Amino acid sequence: REGWKRLGQWVALGALVGVACGAASALFLWLLDLATDFRTEHEIIVFTLPLAGLVIGAIYERWGAPIEGGNNLVIDTIHDEGPQLPLRMAPMVLVGTVLTHLFGGSAGREGTAVQMGASLADAIAFRLGVDGPVRRQLLAAGVAGGFGSVFGTPIAGCVFGLEFIVLGRLQHDALVPALVASIVGDLVTRALGIAHTPYPTIAPLALTPLLLAQWALFAIAMAATTTAFIELTHRIKTTLKARVTRLPFRMFLGGAAVVALWQLMGTSEYLGLGVPTIVRAFSDPSLPVYAFAAKLLFTAITIGAGFLGGEVTPLFFVGAALGSVLARAMGLPIDMGAGVGLAVVFAAASNAPLALSIMAVELLGASVLPHVVIVAVIAYLLTGHRGIYPSQRLTRPKW
Amino acid sequence: REGWKRLGQWVALGALVGVACGAASALFLWLLDLATDFRTEHEIIVFTLPLAGLVIGAIYERWGAPIEGGNNLVIDTIHDEGPQLPLRMAPMVLVGTVLTHLFGGSAGREGTAVQMGASLADAIAFRLGVDGPVRRQLLAAGVAGGFGSVFGTPIAGCVFGLEFIVLGRLQHDALVPALVASIVGDLVTRALGIAHTPYPTIAPLALTPLLLAQWALFAIAMAATTTAFIELTHRIKTTLKARVTRLPFRMFLGGAAVVALWQLMGTSEYLGLGVPTIVRAFSDPSLPVYAFAAKLLFTAITIGAGFLGGEVTPLFFVGAALGSVLARAMGLPIDMGAGVGLAVVFAAASNAPLALSIMAVELLGASVLPHVVIVAVIAYLLTGHRGIYPSQRLTRPKW
Repeated sequence: REGWKRLGQWVALGALVGVACGAASALFLWLLDLATDFRTEHEIIVFTLPLAGLVIGAIYERWGAPIEGGNNLVIDTIHDEGPQLPLRMAPMVLVGTVLTHLFGGSAGREGTAVQMGASLADAIAFRLGVDGPVRRQLLAAGVAGGFGSVFGTPIAGCVFGLEFIVLGRLQHDALVPALVASIVGDLVTRALGIAHTPYPTIAPLALTPLLLAQWALFAIAMAATTTAFIELTHRIKTTLKARVTRLPFRMFLGGAAVVALWQLMGTSEYLGLGVPTIVRAFSDPSLPVYAFAAKLLFTAITIGAGFLGGEVTPLFFVGAALGSVLARAMGLPIDMGAGVGLAVVFAAASNAPLALSIMAVELLGASVLPHVVIVAVIAYLLTGHRGIYPSQRLTRPKW
Repeated sequence: REGWKRLGQWVALGALVGVACGAASALFLWLLDLATDFRTEHEIIVFTLPLAGLVIGAIYERWGAPIEGGNNLVIDTIHDEGPQLPLRMAPMVLVGTVLTHLFGGSAGREGTAVQMGASLADAIAFRLGVDGPVRRQLLAAGVAGGFGSVFGTPIAGCVFGLEFIVLGRLQHDALVPALVASIVGDLVTRALGIAHTPYPTIAPLALTPLLLAQWALFAIAMAATTTAFIELTHRIKTTLKARVTRLPFRMFLGGAAVVALWQLMGTSEYLGLGVPTIVRAFSDPSLPVYAFAAKLLFTAITIGAGFLGGEVTPLFFVGAALGSVLARAMGLPIDMGAGVGLAVVFAAASNAPLALSIMAVELLGASVLPHVVIVAVIAYLLTGHRGIYPSQRLTRPKW
């Protein structure tokens, strides 16, 4: 029967995409760990970040033009059935991101994972000559598999693959391939020996009308911070582009600014992913109040100047640090504040409140419900029609 | 600004719907507890179930015609912008359900909660003269508020309100009113002193390729059971209707059949909601293998004959009992098997895999992920285009 054939195709192709995504994520995470370890042991290397920017920029300027759009190119390709995503996207974004982290740029991982996953999925789609709708589903599966395997959160990966393409809708038609790719991708990454950062499990907290009001305030602060990040990154990007035409020089300048800030702050906490500080935000009541702002600035400069990576982990840092401080000020448990904040800034920035709420559950346990959903939805609404992926289509106004 | 006004309206109206739903659910759950306690202490009352059916049937035949569609009427009203849902739906379905449980019928609660919520929401919508789209959003909010407050699972309630109307899509446009109604409804129900059944928190279980294969088998069994329930209930309903024209006599016959089965089985375990057995399924390795089938039969007869209530809790029973037994047979932890089964049979029956997966997390903890999603999606696919709500619209074939 026709239907069984389609189901079989979904499962087989989804699994294929999942294996590719999982293997790519494992390689990426392994190299990222090496790069981060090397940097923390030889911090002097950070002084060469401007030079690294010059070189990466030159390479990207020469060979990277077709993949410049990054995540936006992935979104546009899914919508417009554009030409095949260049397969070179996978190795180039992988190497570019690892170099960003080796030299101390403040960036994330999900952009890399999503772009590797989507370009591998599209290579599979073209290789097998599938039709248009199936190709779109495989691209969503690539996004899901990349996202799910790089963070070890398969269900969030699946929902992210369905949610981030179109703003305000979650279509089930890529559900099966996305779920298969995400589950298989995560299994493959783990089977290849990758261990993900363990986050603390958060203690339950009863919802009360007072807490609801506190969450509303909390969400306003999160939305303001998210908006600041989006606008600042955008401003840096456009201003730099207007003044400095060539990418290598923009990256040189961005790298120099990060080095200057690093020396000014006198701490390496805001370089790279920043995982140790994220974990600290869950328990340390003396976390600096300004930590979120510092990480926001480091990341906006790094990304705005053209370095590769993504925004998830730095925005986890921004959200967790701000949430921890706000919880302190409001008399809420700081682990809950950090946990909700962790998920919410990226949820608002990527317009994926559902995926990030599920991610919070997968990382931090069920006690984050219903809190994370309430705060994520408010912040998602207040952030308006902006986001870190300008290519996201709008089915209707948020409100 | 226009947008802020709409946002304010959503929050205010959502809260209003939530208060109405929460109060209705609290009254309902309180009466349901009284009825269940009375029945378990005076089991002889079950012998009068046929007579009760005769009386309830007569009342419904006389005054209940406009609300006969139940949940399907709610779905149709949302789609077709039909006339206002009769406000009498709320008290009638409440009293009908409490009587069903008082006399020992095997039924649930979510139908009642959803219908009370939707009819109260529609009364608010008509009273305030809101326009068509807002009315539809308030109806979804009523569904969300009713479902969320009656089970104490606000996030699942919200997603259920968005997911169950249309098969295969989750539209965010009613997100805000549904979330507000569901959160407020839950708070109101709890504030009125209602405590929900505590379920055990499930221990983590690592996903492996072998476990994935076991879950696929598990899902096939769940889908077969769900299909059997849907078809049997439908068969009983149509056969009875064809042979016995008047509702009171159909309910009399159904009641008599339940009494006969009850005497035959020699246990009261399969009457009413069956919560004690659901809890038992998580830990008792000697749960009878046939328990799920017995509950399925009791429920199909009760619902097929026209008694009121819903399917959630009996299908929790069916799923948890079957899952517990399957886990035993496969060497899996029985709490995980029971927990996944609990959510999956109703997920497949109502075509709401996402809402029920979230419900499982809210009731049983985050360790049910990713297992419950995998099994729910497979069972949802295999159940095909049938369900306990025939009015659900199809945007596209499942596969």
